[in-house]
Amino acid sequence: MLRVALVQMSVGTNKTENVKRACNMIKKAASEGAKLIGLPECFNCPYGTKYFPEYAEPIPGPSTESLAQCAKENNVYILAGSIPEKHEDKLFNTCTLYNPSGSMIGKYRKIHLFDIDIPGKITFKESEVLSPGSDYLTFDIEGVKIGVGICYDLRFAELAQIYTKLGCKLIIYPGAFNMITGPMHWKLLQQGRAVDNQIYVASVSPARDENASYIAWGHSMIVDPWGKVVESAEAEEKIITADLDFNKVDEVRSNIPISHQKRSDMYKSAEKA
Amino acid sequence: MLRVALVQMSVGTNKTENVKRACNMIKKAASEGAKLIGLPECFNCPYGTKYFPEYAEPIPGPSTESLAQCAKENNVYILAGSIPEKHEDKLFNTCTLYNPSGSMIGKYRKIHLFDIDIPGKITFKESEVLSPGSDYLTFDIEGVKIGVGICYDLRFAELAQIYTKLGCKLIIYPGAFNMITGPMHWKLLQQGRAVDNQIYVASVSPARDENASYIAWGHSMIVDPWGKVVESAEAEEKIITADLDFNKVDEVRSNIPISHQKRSDMYKSAEKA
Repeated sequence: MLRVALVQMSVGTNKTENVKRACNMIKKAASEGAKLIGLPECFNCPYGTKYFPEYAEPIPGPSTESLAQCAKENNVYILAGSIPEKHEDKLFNTCTLYNPSGSMIGKYRKIHLFDIDIPGKITFKESEVLSPGSDYLTFDIEGVKIGVGICYDLRFAELAQIYTKLGCKLIIYPGAFNMITGPMHWKLLQQGRAVDNQIYVASVSPARDENASYIAWGHSMIVDPWGKVVESAEAEEKIITADLDFNKVDEVRSNIPISHQKRSDMYKSAEKA
Repeated sequence: MLRVALVQMSVGTNKTENVKRACNMIKKAASEGAKLIGLPECFNCPYGTKYFPEYAEPIPGPSTESLAQCAKENNVYILAGSIPEKHEDKLFNTCTLYNPSGSMIGKYRKIHLFDIDIPGKITFKESEVLSPGSDYLTFDIEGVKIGVGICYDLRFAELAQIYTKLGCKLIIYPGAFNMITGPMHWKLLQQGRAVDNQIYVASVSPARDENASYIAWGHSMIVDPWGKVVESAEAEEKIITADLDFNKVDEVRSNIPISHQKRSDMYKSAEKA
């Protein structure tokens, strides 16, 4: 059983204040027994390509050093959503991971950049300023393997399939869907990943800010391996917490044993054809 | 634009009557302009392993000959859900396909057999009497490629991914989910396949019969490439019809271009690792 808390925090324009707010909310979640605490995508920076260059920092850097200290002080694992990372002449949308000793033990750069164009509704091109990552990130807590994706990564079934093959029983997606794609797809995609892979799926969004240039959908949630939403926030700032029982993964996989019933031979021949 | 009708018909114990009922409903759907008409899984036989050996017939055989004639008389394509097929000493759960000239132009044997075990709720093992198929089926109507799966095949993301790579813009799943898995997963799985692959998904269930040994969930539906349910039946017998606009597939793929944004290089290295 792993107590996970997802911090759906308000993110403003003051980077230092954002990080302070994140640490305060982590402290609160830790005091309620959470062992693994997730932050949203872009928790130290308003979401938007125009903000990334200004807010970007190296890793390690001021934001990640604060987070490392926060993990140590509260004796928790922190999956620190994401921050704009500056590395050489490139910018990445990067998640960092800390253990309860305060060591940064992992880093994930968003693999699938958010470039969409729904005319008259929303057009966004992360690739105008960001570079994509090229590495997966998994980590273990008490023998349970966990995978990490960021926001738009959620749309790619392949990523979740790969994490599942690697043995993950939970995938966490810090993410900030918007008012167009959020209502349509945010929950559906998480439920789909959960049911297809028979895993837990968690997402962490910033709280909704109606005055932001990019308005986040919110609705951070945890979905169980049946596809059932266990806990969900709505739009406003909130910490949601759930005790994840990973026996549930084994139970569902035993009930509906699709992982053993796959026709991998057939799929492979089709890929080659 | 393709007018598709899904015949959510009641299936009883009299095989000849079932086929007759199917043909009558096809006639009705055709008179309303449907060009492609789908029947449910096991439209000529109650669903259940105990029925399959008794109802099985060779292909071509009496049931498929009636369907071929029905296609010709009504000048429509028929995707004839499935029947238990006897071939040599094996039984298959087999879908047959007819063109408006009355020729059988395709056959699909269920690839993923329905073996599940949810203690205290439902245990079912098709593999006790059926053999699995080993071939995909796609066909073209007016330049649109369509793929076919049967029921439990819907749970396997890989099949839909392969059909999408082959160019399908619609996948039809005749299927009979039940009162346990239906409410949880029937709609979710179809929406998931639709959104992940940006295709239309259609399903055709038998109508619900509360007195049957296996009670079908019903809810035949058509889901568009955004994941939106366009039309849906409830439990009772009903023909649902929709005009599918395949420009919608292109539009969605242009808006959210995940098919071009996949990191296939990365996925392949992960598969090999």
